[in-house]
Amino acid sequence: MKLTAFTDYALRLLMYVAVNDDRLVSIREVSEVFELSRNHLMKIVHELGKGGYLKTVRGKNGGFRLGMLAQDINLGQLIRYTEDDLNVVECFDDKNSNCKIVEQCMLAGVLQMALNSFFSVLDGHTLKDLIEGLCFPEFLPKDTGLS
Amino acid sequence: MKLTAFTDYALRLLMYVAVNDDRLVSIREVSEVFELSRNHLMKIVHELGKGGYLKTVRGKNGGFRLGMLAQDINLGQLIRYTEDDLNVVECFDDKNSNCKIVEQCMLAGVLQMALNSFFSVLDGHTLKDLIEGLCFPEFLPKDTGLS
Repeated sequence: MKLTAFTDYALRLLMYVAVNDDRLVSIREVSEVFELSRNHLMKIVHELGKGGYLKTVRGKNGGFRLGMLAQDINLGQLIRYTEDDLNVVECFDDKNSNCKIVEQCMLAGVLQMALNSFFSVLDGHTLKDLIEGLCFPEFLPKDTGLS
Repeated sequence: MKLTAFTDYALRLLMYVAVNDDRLVSIREVSEVFELSRNHLMKIVHELGKGGYLKTVRGKNGGFRLGMLAQDINLGQLIRYTEDDLNVVECFDDKNSNCKIVEQCMLAGVLQMALNSFFSVLDGHTLKDLIEGLCFPEFLPKDTGLS
């Protein structure tokens, strides 16, 4: 059982943007810090922009910043948004399920309760909780030589 | 976020075996009822046998039955057994994670709590809960013509 790479990278990107909330961040920078493909990150930035999680500024010195406060980005809502498929088993999508016992089986109900419980934990946390004390060593101010 | 097809089919197979607990079941039969590949089911039966969930009888009239009572097959334990990878995000496996903030990031902790909550619901249910009132129409006794 896994979240998609899309969700994983979206979370890393949002954490990075939240820590650097005093300036615009670029795709190139996130790509270098996390060693992730720019193409993949472009799609993620686009989707997070559509969802209001990022605000993008175009142009030469453009980039993006959070579209809302880190404490207002609920992890449950965010991950429901970034995961395109929450059909834990095939029969969650009963129109496209091929299972012969889909109408009487109680498995989907039990798994739905389990999934709700998974998200109820995430619903209790925000992006701000993830970045307490977090710093990215590659972008710490350089030693000035003064000591 | 999905469970593997292995887990999905293992659950269907175990439900079928549990409902037909008065006799041996064959791979062919399960394959026909659920329209699943025999090869795939053979691997599942092998793994469920290794885990004690099934008991296999070899030979011409062989087959398999539950290796323990349906009420003793806990769904949480079972799904932990059938899912080979519970690394919800890459950094759960910190030895093989490429993420640059793995040591200070709080995401894995929050997701681990969510995963524990998912399994705590499953830990409260057994295979028996899934088969209450369940029947497989294809294998109901045929109409005898008496009414």
